[in-house]
Amino acid sequence: MLASLKRILVGRPLKTKELEEQKLNKRKALAILSSDALSSVAYGPEQILIVLFTVGAAAFWYSIPIAIGVLILLLALIASYRQIIFAYPHGGGAYIVSKENLGTYTGLIAGGSLLVDYILTVAVSVSAGTDAITSAFPSLHQFTVPIAIIFVILITILNLRGVTESASVLAYPVYLFVLALFLLIGVGIFNIVTGNVHTNVQLSFGEPIAGISLFLLLKAFSSGSSALTGVEAISNAIPNFKEPSPNNAGKTLIAMGTLLAILFSGIVVLAYFYGITPRGYVTVVSQIAEQTFGRNFMYYFIQGATALILILAANTGYSAFPLLAVNLAKDKFIPRMFMIRGDRLGYSNGIIILGLLSIVLIIVFKGQTEHLIPLYALGVFIPFTLSQSGMVVKWVSSKPKGWIYKLIINSVGAAISLVVCMMFFLTKFSQVWPVLVFLPVIIVFFVRVKKHYDTVGEQLRVAASEANIAIEGNVMIIPVAGITHVVENSLNYAKSLHPEQIIAVYIAFEKEEEAVFEHKWNQWQPDVRLVTLHSPYRSIIQPLSKFIHIIERKAHESNYQVTVVIPQFIPKKGWHNMLHNQSSFLIRAYLLHHKNVIVTTVPYHFKK
Amino acid sequence: MLASLKRILVGRPLKTKELEEQKLNKRKALAILSSDALSSVAYGPEQILIVLFTVGAAAFWYSIPIAIGVLILLLALIASYRQIIFAYPHGGGAYIVSKENLGTYTGLIAGGSLLVDYILTVAVSVSAGTDAITSAFPSLHQFTVPIAIIFVILITILNLRGVTESASVLAYPVYLFVLALFLLIGVGIFNIVTGNVHTNVQLSFGEPIAGISLFLLLKAFSSGSSALTGVEAISNAIPNFKEPSPNNAGKTLIAMGTLLAILFSGIVVLAYFYGITPRGYVTVVSQIAEQTFGRNFMYYFIQGATALILILAANTGYSAFPLLAVNLAKDKFIPRMFMIRGDRLGYSNGIIILGLLSIVLIIVFKGQTEHLIPLYALGVFIPFTLSQSGMVVKWVSSKPKGWIYKLIINSVGAAISLVVCMMFFLTKFSQVWPVLVFLPVIIVFFVRVKKHYDTVGEQLRVAASEANIAIEGNVMIIPVAGITHVVENSLNYAKSLHPEQIIAVYIAFEKEEEAVFEHKWNQWQPDVRLVTLHSPYRSIIQPLSKFIHIIERKAHESNYQVTVVIPQFIPKKGWHNMLHNQSSFLIRAYLLHHKNVIVTTVPYHFKK
Repeated sequence: MLASLKRILVGRPLKTKELEEQKLNKRKALAILSSDALSSVAYGPEQILIVLFTVGAAAFWYSIPIAIGVLILLLALIASYRQIIFAYPHGGGAYIVSKENLGTYTGLIAGGSLLVDYILTVAVSVSAGTDAITSAFPSLHQFTVPIAIIFVILITILNLRGVTESASVLAYPVYLFVLALFLLIGVGIFNIVTGNVHTNVQLSFGEPIAGISLFLLLKAFSSGSSALTGVEAISNAIPNFKEPSPNNAGKTLIAMGTLLAILFSGIVVLAYFYGITPRGYVTVVSQIAEQTFGRNFMYYFIQGATALILILAANTGYSAFPLLAVNLAKDKFIPRMFMIRGDRLGYSNGIIILGLLSIVLIIVFKGQTEHLIPLYALGVFIPFTLSQSGMVVKWVSSKPKGWIYKLIINSVGAAISLVVCMMFFLTKFSQVWPVLVFLPVIIVFFVRVKKHYDTVGEQLRVAASEANIAIEGNVMIIPVAGITHVVENSLNYAKSLHPEQIIAVYIAFEKEEEAVFEHKWNQWQPDVRLVTLHSPYRSIIQPLSKFIHIIERKAHESNYQVTVVIPQFIPKKGWHNMLHNQSSFLIRAYLLHHKNVIVTTVPYHFKK
Repeated sequence: MLASLKRILVGRPLKTKELEEQKLNKRKALAILSSDALSSVAYGPEQILIVLFTVGAAAFWYSIPIAIGVLILLLALIASYRQIIFAYPHGGGAYIVSKENLGTYTGLIAGGSLLVDYILTVAVSVSAGTDAITSAFPSLHQFTVPIAIIFVILITILNLRGVTESASVLAYPVYLFVLALFLLIGVGIFNIVTGNVHTNVQLSFGEPIAGISLFLLLKAFSSGSSALTGVEAISNAIPNFKEPSPNNAGKTLIAMGTLLAILFSGIVVLAYFYGITPRGYVTVVSQIAEQTFGRNFMYYFIQGATALILILAANTGYSAFPLLAVNLAKDKFIPRMFMIRGDRLGYSNGIIILGLLSIVLIIVFKGQTEHLIPLYALGVFIPFTLSQSGMVVKWVSSKPKGWIYKLIINSVGAAISLVVCMMFFLTKFSQVWPVLVFLPVIIVFFVRVKKHYDTVGEQLRVAASEANIAIEGNVMIIPVAGITHVVENSLNYAKSLHPEQIIAVYIAFEKEEEAVFEHKWNQWQPDVRLVTLHSPYRSIIQPLSKFIHIIERKAHESNYQVTVVIPQFIPKKGWHNMLHNQSSFLIRAYLLHHKNVIVTTVPYHFKK
């Protein structure tokens, strides 16, 4: 039943060789990988204005040079990530680049920081989208958390269905959003040029404002650069592209950068010329849309597309997290299970865990994840800085043709990213300090996992370790609970293997039982030796374990192997299991982990 | 670590033969088994006044005859249960009596109804006690649910420590409450007799009141008889008494009845002469205490003792539920696990499940369990009626010496209880209807469990069924994941048993792997046959299960038994398990339940 529900939700399993058909073309890749970056246009410009507004509306003209700074940073990031794509065509982005050029630990900082960040991406963007919906329908407000969780589950299922299917579904909203914003910006600029719009701004461009400081400008800049989160997603996801994947990924990256630049600068320019002031309850994009079109269909179209893309921004996390996890798992820093492809060839463990963790975040923060945004932005700029520094090291050490030009691009990118990181720490420490706690924790975890896998590998290797001692005989111990068919079955099996010794063990809770049982046994199975153990504390495992220990020691002397044969009956229906105490299960688990004995389970299937 | 925590909370394990020392003397038994009955004095009289108040304060004089009715019912119940104790000295109360005299199904109605009722007892009384505390300290009000849950956990732990220990702890609050109420009633009556108290009641005793109806009087009567819940507890718990248990239980029952009668009538009389009107926010007992002592130490002493006993009333459920469960489990109507004695010789499974279920109730009803009270009272009176009818049948059919006298007592009790039951259905149907849903559900469950155990017993019996077919040879299948020490270990074991055939099975996800692995294998273990299976859908269980099916069919022809030998490595630390996929665990569980093969696990313990 569960299997058929899974089939309905996720679809039929795919064969491994169908993998190539699951790869993305450029149009779908752009849709699936850029929703995070593009959606940040909905709040990036506003962040700049909010900071400038602390000085006064007259300072708004600074938003233009700040936006130019953000565009330069975007240009540097795009150029740098394009170089990364061609230098590391198998994907991995910041983690791989940092690891290879700056050392393992630096790589782990980048990887760990991105891993956490993708969880934040999902939680923050789904919460933001849900907020947009509940603002429109206030009666839904009390259901914010369940609605957000349902969205996460839907996106998780979509991703479990596979990359191409989710890309097909997601392409429409992303392109719809781009179309909506193009229309808005186009009509807006037309209005400004023709003087069609009423603007109440003092066009005091270039006039120095009292109270403005470099600190404030840098703060505004770093807030604005939160619009660039999501830019790295493509470089992590190169293996998802159709061949030639680096070329396709490079082109997609440029397309995304161009769209992002146009939308971002368009919104900044419109906001400036419209003289828009950030207000708590109406977003800047909403104000622009209202001034441009009035409250008509177009206005709602733009608002709807924005809400939709905010939710779908989560999907970028779903594309990038599993692939980053695969890279970390290949290097043995996280459990191997992240490398297993699910029925639909996606890395389903990564997808499911990402979904679960973001649901946990949404529940813990009761759907109010806004104040996680700075943490999330910082979590992107740490790997930005590290990956670009890595590229700087790479160019300096390998010096390929034209390396000076490449070096300059990456150096500029690294420097600006570093400044943004520092600004986050300086201006928003109260919101970003958790990174100083969880990054070390994650890295310790990475290192310990790695160490474990290394030790295991060493111990598994056949050649490396001494030969196993040959087994010269077998002793079989059968715990018996009564004189039943189930026990008979196990005895017959043990006898058929002709071990050197068979011992049946009966555990009595009361002294009187012992003699009675021994008598019955000797009549039933006179040829099988029975040992009765008295358990004053009514435990089965304790006396059994003690007895096995004694036998084991004796067996060890003559290189005999001890096997515990457990008779177990299997009821016809699953719910019947709760009607029987699961001692055979407990005994098996205990013995396997605590004793050096082999455990054989002899099932007896009930027919009724 | 868990074990030592358990040791601290629950205490050292006790030997089975220490059971006798765990039995209760009369003083402790009274404390532990009467808290539920005595605590109901805190709300029983109030329930009568609330119903009468719907007509007017002039109707309050009816509370005296109604109270006399309740006392008669109490007398009938006590007399009847005393007869039950001597007739059924091994305990069981309503369930046993109904089953033996009225048939199994009637017994199950009584048993199921009590089983649910004890859960309600715990939830309702802990919630009521918590309410009393949070009324005194309103700042705690928002923590009602966690406080109630903590109380349930504390009482559960106390009961897991064993019967005598909890009795020692509980004796103080119960006797404190009795003392407090005796003082209150004594001083109160002294005040009335000496005319010391200001009473504003019209002493219109015996005057007929307009608007009063038989229906209303019966409603008031059934409400008041909710004070009698808990009377049956002693008859369920006879096995917990020191020898001679029936005598001790009988005396304890009479002591409890006497105390209950004195306290109940005392409160009713004081309420009447003080002219007390039920008010929503101050209980009747609180009003009496205030008028008697003023708001001084004595007032708070009485309020505190009342709150305490309300919480401890839950303990009656803890004494009776596990013993009733044992009786039902002995008759195979509920899972056998309820018959297992824990470390401290209490029936710990019953205690834990009672605790868990009442926590669930508290959470579901957010600590507001007041409207469960009618349901809970009905759940007591159904078994009251059935057990007394059972006694009627018993006397009529066995006709012992003096049976007419006994018959009259039980007939009166049965008739009054039946009237109370009917009144609950007539006057509070909206609150008691769930009983019509859950009773049938529980009884269906009982019957199905019984049926399952019966079939199992039949199939286990050695004599009854045909002999097992002799095993003439063995085939061992070893799923291998690589060329490692773990696999080598399992192969050596299989070889040491000299089965007729050993087959290693390798499951390849990609076609290319197969040849490579076969080549390596033939160099490593040329004498062991290797079968490679291709799994296009990356499943391990599916191809393995198919393969086993084929081998099994062949083996069956020549009476060979198939064993699957699973190599499993055991990491040194528990948390390492999550770093390895648990396929050996899944394969074992699947094969045991779906195939007729024996599963042998060969552990390989890592040293690092």
